Amino acid sequence: MRRVCTDVEWFEDYQIGDEFLSDPVEFTEKEIVEFGRRYDPQPFHIDRAAAEASPFGGLIASGTHLFPAVWGGMIRAGFLNGRALGAPGVELRFLKPVRPGDTLTVLTRVTETRLSQSRADRGYVSFQSEATNQKGDVVMTFSYKQIIPKRPV
Amino acid sequence: MRRVCTDVEWFEDYQIGDEFLSDPVEFTEKEIVEFGRRYDPQPFHIDRAAAEASPFGGLIASGTHLFPAVWGGMIRAGFLNGRALGAPGVELRFLKPVRPGDTLTVLTRVTETRLSQSRADRGYVSFQSEATNQKGDVVMTFSYKQIIPKRPV
Repeated sequence: MRRVCTDVEWFEDYQIGDEFLSDPVEFTEKEIVEFGRRYDPQPFHIDRAAAEASPFGGLIASGTHLFPAVWGGMIRAGFLNGRALGAPGVELRFLKPVRPGDTLTVLTRVTETRLSQSRADRGYVSFQSEATNQKGDVVMTFSYKQIIPKRPV
Repeated sequence: MRRVCTDVEWFEDYQIGDEFLSDPVEFTEKEIVEFGRRYDPQPFHIDRAAAEASPFGGLIASGTHLFPAVWGGMIRAGFLNGRALGAPGVELRFLKPVRPGDTLTVLTRVTETRLSQSRADRGYVSFQSEATNQKGDVVMTFSYKQIIPKRPV
């Protein structure tokens, strides 16, 4: 299984099946509650007692928190190398709750590469990412394509 | 056009076509850069000079920032009323850059309601949300379904 976090840079460098491993990202109760208070103040993200009485049985991280947190672990590990020009969208799937003390690691795989039809200097690289906790459970998946410049001539 | 942010609470209260308006959410340069440094340290989110030299022509907010920020404006306006039990996923589309000083407002519409097949006490409500900036441009859309309890008998 290849781990190629840092040795790809331009569109031509990405190959279907290439894999990237993120830095691990820990979710503390403090950060779950702080993020929830600011961005998703539903009871099971911000209030331990209400969360314990909820069907979740305790505090869980907001889905709006999971995505930036694990993305940060990917970018810090060298994913995209500062070259990508953004993504037209992303599809997120939340499979299991993330609780205080959980640590997530993301494995990302290239699923498609395609040259731009309208811009000769770039292409699209499609990725599928899978976030796994310390017990080995997949807690979230997400798929997206990134606009990535071709190697300058 | 109905605005029904606060008078719906249980699954039975949601009707296809119901609309919800979020609180407005402003994106300051300070918050764009702070969020970017923590969660998406790509040059055009965190470095004004690099962003000006990029195809974006200046700093833009991370897509990973847009979602929690506007979601916060929705929840604070009373959306979901603290009753929802989470979402299995969300599909985000990023249509235009969001820059320092932009203010986004989200209009959300119910697109489908469906009782759970496996749990008699709940149903799924599907939503389509559209985030518009102060110039009237739609900058992001997102769709998702929420698990919402039926009214207790």
